[in-house]
Amino acid sequence: MIPVSEIVGRLRERGARSVALQFPAGLARQAPATAAALRREGFEVIVSGDPCYGACDLALDALAFADVLVHFGHAPVEARPDVIYEPVRFDFDVEVLENALPLLHGRRIGLVTTVQHVHLIGAMTEFLRDHGIEAAVSPGDGRTPLAGQVLGCNFAAARATGADEVLFVGTGVFHPIGIRLATRARVVALDPYTGEAQEVDADRLVRRRAAVMAKAEGAANFGVIVSTKSGQRRMDLARRLVALSDKAVLVAMREVSPAEMLDLGFAAYVNTACPRLAYDDQIRFPVPVLTPPEFEILCGVRAWDDYTIDEYLAP
Amino acid sequence: MIPVSEIVGRLRERGARSVALQFPAGLARQAPATAAALRREGFEVIVSGDPCYGACDLALDALAFADVLVHFGHAPVEARPDVIYEPVRFDFDVEVLENALPLLHGRRIGLVTTVQHVHLIGAMTEFLRDHGIEAAVSPGDGRTPLAGQVLGCNFAAARATGADEVLFVGTGVFHPIGIRLATRARVVALDPYTGEAQEVDADRLVRRRAAVMAKAEGAANFGVIVSTKSGQRRMDLARRLVALSDKAVLVAMREVSPAEMLDLGFAAYVNTACPRLAYDDQIRFPVPVLTPPEFEILCGVRAWDDYTIDEYLAP
Repeated sequence: MIPVSEIVGRLRERGARSVALQFPAGLARQAPATAAALRREGFEVIVSGDPCYGACDLALDALAFADVLVHFGHAPVEARPDVIYEPVRFDFDVEVLENALPLLHGRRIGLVTTVQHVHLIGAMTEFLRDHGIEAAVSPGDGRTPLAGQVLGCNFAAARATGADEVLFVGTGVFHPIGIRLATRARVVALDPYTGEAQEVDADRLVRRRAAVMAKAEGAANFGVIVSTKSGQRRMDLARRLVALSDKAVLVAMREVSPAEMLDLGFAAYVNTACPRLAYDDQIRFPVPVLTPPEFEILCGVRAWDDYTIDEYLAP
Repeated sequence: MIPVSEIVGRLRERGARSVALQFPAGLARQAPATAAALRREGFEVIVSGDPCYGACDLALDALAFADVLVHFGHAPVEARPDVIYEPVRFDFDVEVLENALPLLHGRRIGLVTTVQHVHLIGAMTEFLRDHGIEAAVSPGDGRTPLAGQVLGCNFAAARATGADEVLFVGTGVFHPIGIRLATRARVVALDPYTGEAQEVDADRLVRRRAAVMAKAEGAANFGVIVSTKSGQRRMDLARRLVALSDKAVLVAMREVSPAEMLDLGFAAYVNTACPRLAYDDQIRFPVPVLTPPEFEILCGVRAWDDYTIDEYLAP
């Protein structure tokens, strides 16, 4: 799966003598063999052993000991001269889009997917055209530069299509719900592996978040979490939020963790690190963890009708 | 407990406008109130929310957002111009040393303790002198500069006394066992809170470690962990260890964690981060984790008779 000889070529081209390797959990088992192979080719190798969930979390610590970092599994959210990105591709048969056709209302839709499948965007567009549907495909912003690519924290590629109906091809409902909230478009989600197609709505997520906000109201103090990870460091946003309330304090965190939240003892937190944390992990957290737009609503500087998903757009 | 007005004075002296605060878990609950008090005094405040077990783990990430870091709970292991250390003192009645007297064989001993109690070294020495015992007290090395201070990773202050009998005053048996292995001296440990005194020996620890080494023998590969924390970064040692075996690969880690060990899938690890991890946490780890001297024994470059405790001495 890991194209070692190709990587060796790219490292030699750059004149690299030492290399740091970073794998997300799902690929980490490949680390010992990949490291051994590169060591046999004469490179000094250092593997990053820190958890990694995206290209927003580059192992700069490990890179400090090496000439180049090879980051596996994700496309870049920022260009860095000393980082080589090795995304992984997952194929599927585009005929599966058949299942989405009955759910699409219009003849012109926006089409988006996640990085593992962006190489199939062309084939998907063609399939839709053959079935009388024009698919608009756009690159997002600097964090999602590939045509049709969305992240869990960035739906710019959906917004850029200008479509009022969007087809998301990928697994899970988080991305399509985010697209719905970010664009207000009608959203159909298709899982390319199970073939399941569904229209998604955001009502349940918004109700759940309203309950979290209700619990945070009247908290004695708020820790405003700012991440120290390479691509999650929204310090300007965090400072702006702290300025909204006398009860808010900046809290720098690498891993946003329930144990440290408890230790510090803030009554509630506002999360400016990975936007998904508040939505996905509230159940693991000991106290309410708000998104930036939610904290703005609580502080009275945003209207409830402007409730929106937290996105990390390119600066 | 936190001397806020004194800290304000020290910050103003330096002309600091923004301050990062770092607390070990036991003091973290003081963070919201300390942060609020400093904010009221006009400082921009950022609290480090990462776990912290010692002055070897400075919140440099949080300091990057501030003029000065105030590190609570520990004495310095290195001098940094932009870090203020605020150790905490814990008092006890030195009369408790009475309990150790029957266990001491000689008239001249070495006396050591941990940082919370070093301010009592003078009183303890005096008590012992009044009871006919001369206590030798020495500073350690650059990581333990206070007279009589030992760390779990540094017993230089015990070694420097040259005594063949050492009294350790403090809690737990890890430090006195380490002193025993590091100095080969006879060691008496006194818990100043319970009053319990005992002679310690290292036999059980060595037996337990021999069993871990036996399990690591014949491992298909070894991850040699190098820490990315400010004061745990023994890269020269890690590189030397990797050079001992074709099966060894460098692994950079911030938090040495069982989950990441499993994900990476090395058959065994060698730990050059905090020395205590291998001794204290083997039970949490999914595979054998060796100390550097243990890996040297396994590789045949150290004799079993030279088994010793892993110490992090000042360079």
